[in-house]
Amino acid sequence: MRYHKIPDEAVRRLPLYLRGLLFSSQDLPEKISSRKLADFLGVNPWQVRKDFSYFGEFGTPGVGYNVEKLIKQIKKILKLNVSHKAALVGVGNLGAALLTYPEFKIYGFDIAAVFDNNPKKIGKKMANVVVEDVSNIGLLKKRDVKIGIITVPKSVAQETADALFNAGVRSILNFSPCSIKAPKKIKVVNIDIAMDLVRLPYYMTS
Amino acid sequence: MRYHKIPDEAVRRLPLYLRGLLFSSQDLPEKISSRKLADFLGVNPWQVRKDFSYFGEFGTPGVGYNVEKLIKQIKKILKLNVSHKAALVGVGNLGAALLTYPEFKIYGFDIAAVFDNNPKKIGKKMANVVVEDVSNIGLLKKRDVKIGIITVPKSVAQETADALFNAGVRSILNFSPCSIKAPKKIKVVNIDIAMDLVRLPYYMTS
Repeated sequence: MRYHKIPDEAVRRLPLYLRGLLFSSQDLPEKISSRKLADFLGVNPWQVRKDFSYFGEFGTPGVGYNVEKLIKQIKKILKLNVSHKAALVGVGNLGAALLTYPEFKIYGFDIAAVFDNNPKKIGKKMANVVVEDVSNIGLLKKRDVKIGIITVPKSVAQETADALFNAGVRSILNFSPCSIKAPKKIKVVNIDIAMDLVRLPYYMTS
Repeated sequence: MRYHKIPDEAVRRLPLYLRGLLFSSQDLPEKISSRKLADFLGVNPWQVRKDFSYFGEFGTPGVGYNVEKLIKQIKKILKLNVSHKAALVGVGNLGAALLTYPEFKIYGFDIAAVFDNNPKKIGKKMANVVVEDVSNIGLLKKRDVKIGIITVPKSVAQETADALFNAGVRSILNFSPCSIKAPKKIKVVNIDIAMDLVRLPYYMTS
């Protein structure tokens, strides 16, 4: 299968289908229709069928999708059938909040390493992980951590990312309000909270 | 101008152009090219020209865009030429982190009201705002708050949103890991942090 031709938007929706299947407010039947799946996201049923079509044969026309099988298939596509270790850099208010964020564990993610440059924080235990000196990011190489979460000030975001890349991290969730330059093989997903807030007034009619 | 025909993706990119113009790591010249603007986001120059074209005439072909004028134009389109009051509901770890998030103020946003259901938190001052009882959300009507930020557990996300809508809030930034049903005129932007983390492994080749 040629994964690289699949649009990012479809990959973005897969976890949302999964979330709907796992945490529907109603008990789900054994089979589910694309219409019901579409309702989880507020999209059209054809969008669901198109998204799944990139990954092969899933449901049966007129019958729907087997819920249990579909959960397994989506997890396999997203590589969530195995657990993942992540490193978080920058334990300010936002970083500290993410350390205790309950949703990560549900999907098999474990924040196994935490770094900061503040001597008052280094060595302390936060959410069961000891905060390490940011100058030791290179040690991640030996610890099989492939995911980095960046919650540092933007002035040091790029150097933090570079240190993570050098330590073998292959994907980044970046909360710093700036773009990060990364090697082509590395995936960076930016969550810029202010940028999402800022576009709300546009939609408000006066 | 018929704003409603403009794709969400273009509106999503406008704040990013603005951020680049306001906080470029280099001193900007008086005029800026679409290529340079494109670099802020890692998109193609034609994308910049297309995005701006939805909103009228901006730059001069071959000359570029006047930086000062462009900042003003983008702010006006996004209605950032006036300040906005927001209410935050749910002062757990993430909510508390957002209260001190420095980027909101830069764009003229003020978290003017904070609500929680925890008696230990109600009445306390957090980031210069007194936490109010969540049952008083209705009082927002008199206080000209049009933006809501939801950081409550997902089990109460919908009722929180409904209370905000009833109190005159017209747009929502939702951090609860669930979809929110809203009247058609209300814009909901979801930031589901886990959903963004979850799609990282997909992109990692083994």
